[in-house]
Amino acid sequence: MKKIGILGGLAWPATVEYYKAICQLSQKYHSQFNIVGPSPMPEMCIESVNINYSYNRRGKQGDEKSWDEYDTYFRSALKRLEDNGVDFAIIASNTPHTRFNSITRGLIVPVLSIFEAIANECDKQQINHFLLLGTEPTMNSIAFPEFMKSKGIEVLIPGAPDAQLKVVDLISVLFKGESVNCSVDLHEVVNSTYEQVPHKQKNVCLACTELPLAFEGKEHLETFTHKGVFYLNTTIIHATAAFQYAIQ
Amino acid sequence: MKKIGILGGLAWPATVEYYKAICQLSQKYHSQFNIVGPSPMPEMCIESVNINYSYNRRGKQGDEKSWDEYDTYFRSALKRLEDNGVDFAIIASNTPHTRFNSITRGLIVPVLSIFEAIANECDKQQINHFLLLGTEPTMNSIAFPEFMKSKGIEVLIPGAPDAQLKVVDLISVLFKGESVNCSVDLHEVVNSTYEQVPHKQKNVCLACTELPLAFEGKEHLETFTHKGVFYLNTTIIHATAAFQYAIQ
Repeated sequence: MKKIGILGGLAWPATVEYYKAICQLSQKYHSQFNIVGPSPMPEMCIESVNINYSYNRRGKQGDEKSWDEYDTYFRSALKRLEDNGVDFAIIASNTPHTRFNSITRGLIVPVLSIFEAIANECDKQQINHFLLLGTEPTMNSIAFPEFMKSKGIEVLIPGAPDAQLKVVDLISVLFKGESVNCSVDLHEVVNSTYEQVPHKQKNVCLACTELPLAFEGKEHLETFTHKGVFYLNTTIIHATAAFQYAIQ
Repeated sequence: MKKIGILGGLAWPATVEYYKAICQLSQKYHSQFNIVGPSPMPEMCIESVNINYSYNRRGKQGDEKSWDEYDTYFRSALKRLEDNGVDFAIIASNTPHTRFNSITRGLIVPVLSIFEAIANECDKQQINHFLLLGTEPTMNSIAFPEFMKSKGIEVLIPGAPDAQLKVVDLISVLFKGESVNCSVDLHEVVNSTYEQVPHKQKNVCLACTELPLAFEGKEHLETFTHKGVFYLNTTIIHATAAFQYAIQ
């Protein structure tokens, strides 16, 4: 198996979910073989950064220069993974993916994008639109919808005035690893947006890797349906893509 | 805060517990300050190794040469943490600590021993004896009881013929991250040993970092009492020692 590099700590509860998912996938995969001892695991190196440092260095949309410190912090962490000898890396968070091109500039190690993994899952599920829920930079970035548009996927963002704030508030609680079941609140956000757009099917991309933790009992599934809404769990979609690549 | 290196994957459920514990300790510590954004976290690098590889390279007690491949595997992982730039490292498992001197030979990076952390906790709790439960190499090693003896702590190992096997079987289930509540089984092991030794107080050292997971709801505590037995949770004791060292 290839060695996996994980840029983590963004926030820590999502890193736990990625690591757990990869280990459980490895156990399931190896259960078909006759193994002596505990299940084989892909070697991994997790570079867990200080989310407070990166949070306070977020730049402004459209102002490239303002993202310099943010991008450099993540690029350095990925460089350490490259120096460690990992075969490929993933960034265990959606937000830095809005800066993916700048962050990965000059690196040799391949970095498996969460955008790519989400688009592949949409293709598999025959989905051509979704409502994007995530952190403030994710919901307001140009990179996310532009990437999806190039794959034929339409991205909606929360429409009601206080809807984005509701999502951001929920994320700030989930960042602490606190157990909440706020899927009802998210449901209101979903409904208020889809009232304004002419789609029969309601699809939601949980594009903050902590958001699936608001759906207790479903957080380990790549996709799930809750109250008639179809959800994409970017954490498990990305972790699964990483494990599949590791065993290729 | 100092950057923490963690040699993990031994097995993965314990690595999750260490990482969670350190992040939660950091949140608690920083709640006293006025912080903008998510709680600051110590930077960490987790080198997660393949437990199947190391398991199948365990040597024999008293045969130094037979441990060569085992020791080298862990020494190389610690060297990668050293090269990464961590300020200190921990090995998130008891078993490799029975080979601590050989594994850490030639390294510059300080490695905080779990034995040291356990002995300090015993001192704090005024404990001078405990029953040692862990993997087969841990229960039968010379290094563990010798270290504790040097600190004035007497180490007992399970006395009944099938008792060690019971502990090892339980560990093999916990290694998979499966939820069990086998504390009752452990209780029998504890009682059968303490029947043969003249101690009023029953103390148990859960010296496999997965064993505390058999005590649902108590796995996050450094020490706890269950059915009149006093338990030392080496996972949380070691993780707490690491966090305290990181903020010093």
